[in-house]
Amino acid sequence: MAERVQIAPTVRTCPGNADGGRKMFNDNSSKTTVRDNGVIKGAPRPNNRRRIYVTGSNETIKVPFEEVLLSSTMEANGSTTPNDPVRLYFTEGPECDPEVGLDELRREWIIARGDVEEIEGRKSQIRDDGRKRQRLNLLGDKQETEVPKFLSKQRSVLRAKSGANVSQMYYARKGEITNEMEYVAIREGVTPEFVRSELAIGRAILPSNINHTELEPMIIGTNFLVKVNSNIGNSAVTSSIKEEVEKLKWSTHWGADTVMDLSTGPDIHTTREWIIRNSPVPIGTVPIYQALEKVDGNPAELTWEIMKDTLIEQAEQGVDYFTIHAGVLLRYVPLTAKRVTGIVSRGGSILAAWCLAHHKENFLYTNFEEICEIMKAYDVSFSLGDGLRPGSIADANDDAQFGELDTLGELTQVAWKHDVQVMIEGPGHVPLHLINENIERQKRVCFEAPFYTLGPLTTDIAPGYDHITSAIGAAVIGGGGTAMLCYVTPKEHLGLPNKNDVKDGLIAYRIAAHAADLAKGHQGAKQRDDALSKARFEFRWEDQFNLSLDPDTARSYHDETLPATPAKTAHFCSMCGPKFCSMRITQDVRNYALEHGVEDSEAVSLGLEEKAKEFVAGGSQIYLESIK
Amino acid sequence: MAERVQIAPTVRTCPGNADGGRKMFNDNSSKTTVRDNGVIKGAPRPNNRRRIYVTGSNETIKVPFEEVLLSSTMEANGSTTPNDPVRLYFTEGPECDPEVGLDELRREWIIARGDVEEIEGRKSQIRDDGRKRQRLNLLGDKQETEVPKFLSKQRSVLRAKSGANVSQMYYARKGEITNEMEYVAIREGVTPEFVRSELAIGRAILPSNINHTELEPMIIGTNFLVKVNSNIGNSAVTSSIKEEVEKLKWSTHWGADTVMDLSTGPDIHTTREWIIRNSPVPIGTVPIYQALEKVDGNPAELTWEIMKDTLIEQAEQGVDYFTIHAGVLLRYVPLTAKRVTGIVSRGGSILAAWCLAHHKENFLYTNFEEICEIMKAYDVSFSLGDGLRPGSIADANDDAQFGELDTLGELTQVAWKHDVQVMIEGPGHVPLHLINENIERQKRVCFEAPFYTLGPLTTDIAPGYDHITSAIGAAVIGGGGTAMLCYVTPKEHLGLPNKNDVKDGLIAYRIAAHAADLAKGHQGAKQRDDALSKARFEFRWEDQFNLSLDPDTARSYHDETLPATPAKTAHFCSMCGPKFCSMRITQDVRNYALEHGVEDSEAVSLGLEEKAKEFVAGGSQIYLESIK
Repeated sequence: MAERVQIAPTVRTCPGNADGGRKMFNDNSSKTTVRDNGVIKGAPRPNNRRRIYVTGSNETIKVPFEEVLLSSTMEANGSTTPNDPVRLYFTEGPECDPEVGLDELRREWIIARGDVEEIEGRKSQIRDDGRKRQRLNLLGDKQETEVPKFLSKQRSVLRAKSGANVSQMYYARKGEITNEMEYVAIREGVTPEFVRSELAIGRAILPSNINHTELEPMIIGTNFLVKVNSNIGNSAVTSSIKEEVEKLKWSTHWGADTVMDLSTGPDIHTTREWIIRNSPVPIGTVPIYQALEKVDGNPAELTWEIMKDTLIEQAEQGVDYFTIHAGVLLRYVPLTAKRVTGIVSRGGSILAAWCLAHHKENFLYTNFEEICEIMKAYDVSFSLGDGLRPGSIADANDDAQFGELDTLGELTQVAWKHDVQVMIEGPGHVPLHLINENIERQKRVCFEAPFYTLGPLTTDIAPGYDHITSAIGAAVIGGGGTAMLCYVTPKEHLGLPNKNDVKDGLIAYRIAAHAADLAKGHQGAKQRDDALSKARFEFRWEDQFNLSLDPDTARSYHDETLPATPAKTAHFCSMCGPKFCSMRITQDVRNYALEHGVEDSEAVSLGLEEKAKEFVAGGSQIYLESIK
Repeated sequence: MAERVQIAPTVRTCPGNADGGRKMFNDNSSKTTVRDNGVIKGAPRPNNRRRIYVTGSNETIKVPFEEVLLSSTMEANGSTTPNDPVRLYFTEGPECDPEVGLDELRREWIIARGDVEEIEGRKSQIRDDGRKRQRLNLLGDKQETEVPKFLSKQRSVLRAKSGANVSQMYYARKGEITNEMEYVAIREGVTPEFVRSELAIGRAILPSNINHTELEPMIIGTNFLVKVNSNIGNSAVTSSIKEEVEKLKWSTHWGADTVMDLSTGPDIHTTREWIIRNSPVPIGTVPIYQALEKVDGNPAELTWEIMKDTLIEQAEQGVDYFTIHAGVLLRYVPLTAKRVTGIVSRGGSILAAWCLAHHKENFLYTNFEEICEIMKAYDVSFSLGDGLRPGSIADANDDAQFGELDTLGELTQVAWKHDVQVMIEGPGHVPLHLINENIERQKRVCFEAPFYTLGPLTTDIAPGYDHITSAIGAAVIGGGGTAMLCYVTPKEHLGLPNKNDVKDGLIAYRIAAHAADLAKGHQGAKQRDDALSKARFEFRWEDQFNLSLDPDTARSYHDETLPATPAKTAHFCSMCGPKFCSMRITQDVRNYALEHGVEDSEAVSLGLEEKAKEFVAGGSQIYLESIK
């Protein structure tokens, strides 16, 4: 952690005060706003949380946080001491009508840079919405794809002017601090210059397609808070567009920092449009899924032209990062032959099938520079896919996996030559003792480009509980420096996640990411633990609930045993059960030590003698009260 | 892991075949038995699991396993290859009528050693059943405590003859291999001599009170499978005796290796009697909880005489290990004054209160040798309690915690002087990066006595999900060498666990323990992962479910999306969703590589060319089929 440059104690908890002139902001999601030291604050909502905005060096930079208001500490002498509110990193975005989508907050930033042009964009085709839609049309099914109202806006497409590069890495390398960089600096509690320098050397990415103007910028890198991705998306048999938008909202509500739309079912183009227009967080995709739909599911018929068309289609919609399986090289494919579970990545298997069918090198690899040209015209970031990741404990850290990783490192340098942002995807299934090798090797061969791992799952034996098998691995690899964790839900290996599974997966991964932040010594992260534990110790139950990842669940579990209000308000409550009596005794120890300035052993010994007399004189009644 | 002496690939999965003459055993829990190579096997039960027994060098040693029967692999050429059954470590014990209790399988072993005597034992007193029972009696409440039928058996109490030591450590140090040692050797798949030697040097314990004759012996040590403890027990407001017995059964069903009865409510003595008489696993307690009840909840009134009386009472009932907070020394108490959460251990706070009230040294410390005399007369093992464990991230690894740990190391040597078995309890709340220091320090200062940790929780911010925050820490500390993990349920910090919470806690901890076994390179553990992953790869859904920690949940999650039977029987099923199509492609890669003996890169390259032609000729139809 020597490289970490910590400017202010910060985030997922508290960024401290940002500098710069602050202006009043009309917060649509909360009618009441107050202004407090230049920070715009909404009215407290349930759980004593309220939305606040910290403005940057210009009024268009308004960074959202959630602030938890705490009650006061009751001191031993009966006086009270207020507790500072705790600021939480906030991913949910503003409320909006899903049929309209979010405001295009970033549009003026992008236009103002003067390096983009508005174009008509690629014409939408019927095959963009997938095979099922094509078939329905062939069969004369007149049922139309739902068209969101906002499409009637005739939204224009932005693209870099000819020869221009609009990637955040490009700006960073020129020494320019963009509004996006300042935004994430406030969000993370670091200086804008630190953000810029991390982007410039490729140790972080700021995924922000110029066509995703609704985005609230965020950053992914080992020297920032560990991020979490959730996967949503329909399949041939399940889900409607509105359900997917609901899963998006649900994901950001539970703390997803990015969301991948992995749809493979009908209306794939339209579903993505709805998702992006409603998303405050970066959206990632695996474009080859859609390309495969365009060739009716036959990998052998994939061509570079179809892939390129798909990349442009999605870039124009505003996808922020593409998973590109360009490391699945022909020579690595047979290395999977002796594995217990072969190739488990869908993208990896599609490319392997293509390579085998044509006995040619992976067309994503051979056309990689041309992909870079597309990426930099829209600022789409690479998420270089691990198509050969292990699918079982037995296959972890093998030659196929690490061979591909070497190639991803080579491709990282190609992308960086084009000033295109890159992160690297990682496994998968890895037992605990082999995790460290993954992160250390990735850092080395990929030159510290951000690592983005799926779990890893630390055992194969618990289908139905893979949010737990993988949260263990995720916390460990996150603590080791992984920048973003791709969640795994309880349904992994068994079925597509529903809304509850999305929540379970995200809570498990918020835990893993936070445990990793603590392991990395993140002071801002620890503030939240300390505030919660202080509330717990002081019997401030509501504060404890409100500071927790899931206040409603914490409250309801508590209320199952002790539903009465007094149990949540009494400071030293005899109803609280044995667990908390012990805290009462410590309170006495502490008060005594503080009053007498007890510091060293001798003083302690003297003090205890005095305390002992006092206790005997008082009949030790407080213990009788507290332990029952 | 250099010290690990692995005799046979083994357990939680498969101990291989034990040697010695085997006899037919009448398995009461399964009417049908078959005999197969001397191993007694019951009829398959749901989930294709069946109880089997491996007999040892004499017919009284019958070690239970659960065997999972697997279907055959369908090879590419249409032939089938059978898959060996997988043996699982089994903690559930035989079925029994809870009002009668389990058979006293160990009684004859103990008697035969000739070093015990049957005694009348301590007379039961009204105060043994706690304050509430006392008050009810004072109030003239005639409602009697439920008396289990087996008490009418007039069960006699066993105790070491005067001057004798009946601890397994004592026998081990004499070079004697007891039936208990042979039993656990079969269970763990190691030699009896290895078990003996680990017990002799104190690196493992075999908790087995001579009055817990119903016990199925097990071992706790860093060179054996990682074990899991579950806590049950009533409180002043909840639970009946029968509910607690049900929680015991539920615990062992979900894989608890030991169970602690932490009852503090009414009928504390009688509840414990029912639990022990029904328990196939070692039972642990915190005797000071009951001692405190005997003095009406006032720690200052505790005396060594009351504590001693309680230790003997519980030793005569058959408690296998006692948590003794003898390391909470007077001088450590003030070190907790500046903590965020002070003293969170109930036992620790009781002792701290006693020390403060009397300004005297902890009476468990000053009477420790006399405690050892009691322990060795019944073979009760020490679980030296960490009364000063950290209760928050902020307090981890502080002077109070490590001061107490040093004292526990000193006490370990005192206990070992008496040939009394010892394990050491550990934290608590510890962030990931501080976990390693805990295990390394414990090994050093406690001379490799087994470590038994509560979690640790790796963050404080997720009340309601502490089975997950702590499973992360448990897996890591287990992988580092912790011998037993004390589970944490979702209700930790919020309320007493119900039956579902017990299950959730145990599943999370079975995952953590297994992940730790894999990290320690346990070959037997890995066999289960490999068998499950092979089943997954070969679309043997039922085998995958049956090998999992919770087959019913895995099956039901699968069936939510694809309930049809064909989805669980088809070998290469187009209905299985995108995830599994990728496996189909690997199957082709693998078959090809095997057929052609492809080994090195050149051969691979040639092979691919041939494969490519074949694919193009075949119209690549299999992909069309598989990816949709």
